[in-house]
Amino acid sequence: MPPTPPNSPSSSEARFEHRVRVQYVDTDQGGVVHHAAYLRFMEQARVELLRHRGVDYRLFEIERRRAIPVAEIRVRYQLPCRFDDELVVECWVGVINRAKLRFDYRIRRGDAVTTTAEITCACVDLDRERIVSMDPLLREAFE
Amino acid sequence: MPPTPPNSPSSSEARFEHRVRVQYVDTDQGGVVHHAAYLRFMEQARVELLRHRGVDYRLFEIERRRAIPVAEIRVRYQLPCRFDDELVVECWVGVINRAKLRFDYRIRRGDAVTTTAEITCACVDLDRERIVSMDPLLREAFE
Amino acid sequence: MPPTPPNSPSSSEARFEHRVRVQYVDTDQGGVVHHAAYLRFMEQARVELLRHRGVDYRLFEIERRRAIPVAEIRVRYQLPCRFDDELVVECWVGVINRAKLRFDYRIRRGDAVTTTAEITCACVDLDRERIVSMDPLLREAFE
Amino acid sequence: MPPTPPNSPSSSEARFEHRVRVQYVDTDQGGVVHHAAYLRFMEQARVELLRHRGVDYRLFEIERRRAIPVAEIRVRYQLPCRFDDELVVECWVGVINRAKLRFDYRIRRGDAVTTTAEITCACVDLDRERIVSMDPLLREAFE
Repeated sequence: MPPTPPNSPSSSEARFEHRVRVQYVDTDQGGVVHHAAYLRFMEQARVELLRHRGVDYRLFEIERRRAIPVAEIRVRYQLPCRFDDELVVECWVGVINRAKLRFDYRIRRGDAVTTTAEITCACVDLDRERIVSMDPLLREAFE
Repeated sequence: MPPTPPNSPSSSEARFEHRVRVQYVDTDQGGVVHHAAYLRFMEQARVELLRHRGVDYRLFEIERRRAIPVAEIRVRYQLPCRFDDELVVECWVGVINRAKLRFDYRIRRGDAVTTTAEITCACVDLDRERIVSMDPLLREAFE
Repeated sequence: MPPTPPNSPSSSEARFEHRVRVQYVDTDQGGVVHHAAYLRFMEQARVELLRHRGVDYRLFEIERRRAIPVAEIRVRYQLPCRFDDELVVECWVGVINRAKLRFDYRIRRGDAVTTTAEITCACVDLDRERIVSMDPLLREAFE
Repeated sequence: MPPTPPNSPSSSEARFEHRVRVQYVDTDQGGVVHHAAYLRFMEQARVELLRHRGVDYRLFEIERRRAIPVAEIRVRYQLPCRFDDELVVECWVGVINRAKLRFDYRIRRGDAVTTTAEITCACVDLDRERIVSMDPLLREAFE
């Protein structure tokens, strides 16, 4: 069986689609979406993917006193996006283990892939302010 | 004696000057600075004015468990600003009393006034999550 | 007939409702939505209100070579909003004449009004880079 | 001679230091700097490094009708930063050739490295809206 190409979710992974409309504030004087704005689109998709899998991230922080801050990001900007574009942010979990939770992304405008990315999160205990093993609630949601 | 015109600090008020350089991310596809970016410039000037008057706002929140969230803003955009412009954000306290602390602003590029604003803050108790009288530390700093 | 109270659209005005979900990036260390984030929510609602009235703002800039930059803003923050809140941004045109187009706002979370605002736009000619009379297309859309 | 470790500028490279003060708006409800804010700090450092090497990026876009949009980013968040932290953004050119210009970063708070990153830019012709060879002005500035 050929290996799954990067940024293509395998059949066993749930690919989640989150739609965003590019806003005026997301653009810069180059006439395209500023590179930092995509992190916003991807954060939003991440929260919705979690909700879709039964994890309310707001309650996760409040009740479990844990958070999943971003530890590493990698983004490739392949095609520029513009004001008022309707983008589909495909998001799935590429890796989950004790140490990390990696969300993989493919952003499309129609059939064209504009952006691919991997956003790796750690798990921290908000009261002790230190890194802990990935919360079991998240492991159950994605394994 | 004629009244002090709005957005001109009277002689008894300390006018503070904070310099900012417009960044690329602050612009939008209209080729000018996005209107929301000015709130960032003004927040920065506010924190520096407080420091100049002896109030470390970071410690203010930590030690006194109080914050001064924005309750009302009014901004008039008179001239557009552009990428890499060097702006002078003039900031002074226009009103301070038990109920509020109003920071007044005049943003200049060279001699030209580009923007004027009033940002009114309330005082909240972070533990009780409710509005309280303006913290005496702030009243002493500006009266 | 009693006058329409401020920030209540009169019966002849079309009140438009745009829904937004507060994102993590919109919050600050005070645990609430940063005051600048509301300008983003309102800009988004403005673009959708225009679309609802038949004006595609992206094409408006491209085809008519005109823009409606923000000339003045006034926002009153009445209740704090938080991460993951679902907000309803009510938006309507409060004033339109040759000189300006004023969008009025009332942001609600459920039945509670959290924020009210007026955002006044001018009309500029993008090629000549100067203020012009309000574009007839906009006047027709809202009169 | 041992190889230069990643994110350590070799002696032949000019390491540029740009200082930033973390603003309130850069924080999120986790009480730390939001991951997207670092892209802002790094963009600012990039523009100042260019200026230091004799390239005024504003004029570069206007006179040469070229831009260097971000094509790929990689950021590792090692330690959280907080409101009012004074950060030193070390920036140098790690790679420059016909195809790309890679800016490397190490962000420090005092002696502690908080963040490392590589931001790769392409060169585009603004009138033809297509990727071109890296502008000779930039190659001369960094070779």
